[in-house]
Amino acid sequence: MYKETNKRSIVKGITWRFVATSTTMVIVYVFFGNIELAIATGLLESVAKVGLYWGHEKIWQRVKWGRKKIEPFNLWFTGLPLSGKTTIADKVYKKLEKLDIPIERVDSKDIREMFPNAGYSREERNRHIKRIGHLVQTLQKNSVSTVCSFVSPYHESRKMIREMVKNNVIIYIKADIESCKTRDYKGVYQKALNGEIEKFTGISDIYEEPKYAEIVIDTDSISIDEAVDLIVKYIRKHYVK
Amino acid sequence: MYKETNKRSIVKGITWRFVATSTTMVIVYVFFGNIELAIATGLLESVAKVGLYWGHEKIWQRVKWGRKKIEPFNLWFTGLPLSGKTTIADKVYKKLEKLDIPIERVDSKDIREMFPNAGYSREERNRHIKRIGHLVQTLQKNSVSTVCSFVSPYHESRKMIREMVKNNVIIYIKADIESCKTRDYKGVYQKALNGEIEKFTGISDIYEEPKYAEIVIDTDSISIDEAVDLIVKYIRKHYVK
Repeated sequence: MYKETNKRSIVKGITWRFVATSTTMVIVYVFFGNIELAIATGLLESVAKVGLYWGHEKIWQRVKWGRKKIEPFNLWFTGLPLSGKTTIADKVYKKLEKLDIPIERVDSKDIREMFPNAGYSREERNRHIKRIGHLVQTLQKNSVSTVCSFVSPYHESRKMIREMVKNNVIIYIKADIESCKTRDYKGVYQKALNGEIEKFTGISDIYEEPKYAEIVIDTDSISIDEAVDLIVKYIRKHYVK
Repeated sequence: MYKETNKRSIVKGITWRFVATSTTMVIVYVFFGNIELAIATGLLESVAKVGLYWGHEKIWQRVKWGRKKIEPFNLWFTGLPLSGKTTIADKVYKKLEKLDIPIERVDSKDIREMFPNAGYSREERNRHIKRIGHLVQTLQKNSVSTVCSFVSPYHESRKMIREMVKNNVIIYIKADIESCKTRDYKGVYQKALNGEIEKFTGISDIYEEPKYAEIVIDTDSISIDEAVDLIVKYIRKHYVK
């Protein structure tokens, strides 16, 4: 994935002008100027230079200098169940897609068939996250950026992701456990409280708050759309200049 | 991943010429022509047109028309263990990488950590292939082509891949079972014959020969390098024009 830099375009303009002006001057010199001849010159050069322009373009297409490679990044949303991770990540993904960069959404709902959730022990959760890390690596190798959202409650799995991938941005979606419970449209908190779901993060399993997060979104104090804007702004500033 | 078509470059040349020639003619008309003035014209236009050229370039960078999208393809190598799949696929991958298209190698050795091999029953093998199909889909969605090599011994799993992905090219690496046994540098055939490996394709599990394969390579009659050239030629003809 490449983007033209201003420098490249300016130098391209200068080299083209050198070719085009030399041609015009030679032609005008041969004709000696007056108004009709100026028009004739214009017509003649319009024929000649279309071909030259085309050749010039083709030569530049082979020159790699001055093209900017957009480095892939990985957004990693972490937070309690129902903190709003998926909602915010979905919206961020849609906005980033419009920037015309290759980008992939990675959420439990998207990768269920690739990596079925194996279990909820600490070891199983970490193994699952590691597999997702391998997927992100494979995508990054091909210049594809990623928007991942997983509870990922443990320090070590988030650290592992940071070590595996490039340009990792941890976004901690901070929400009070009581707020999450009130948003419980899936009824999962109630089930966890009733003991119907084992090892449910926030109720019967620990959520280790990130010590290092590039962005912290406090969902109790800012709206979803404000959070989305803030994250997109960060990405535009750091990765898609 | 985009490539400039000839048509786009030619039309770009024509529109630029329209801008440049109009400018030259207006300037020459204002000056009335003679040799010194022609040079002055040239100098003046060289200053003015560099800026115009640059603006023209920037506008064209926003125009999407005439850019050719390279459609991702999936090469699927199937064949008996030690038929030469991985060797040929590795070489094909290296050659295709040089075409400057995003492409990923997918082989057991590459994806072991993402999808650990779960088992060798018909159902388990098919489930494994299906996960790989999801990976290929994810990559294709981001314009990344793939070079996959798996024994994939059953009709139904190869058919499933064909239904899941775009531009699927099945390459059947045909080798006589006796030839495979003589190439048995890993000692796996010997172990299978001794009964140390269960459900080993070709010995204690069936290999269903593909009925539909875009390319069939008979390794008993052509060399590895000939096979590689043949496959690369096919891809260049059909997918990377």
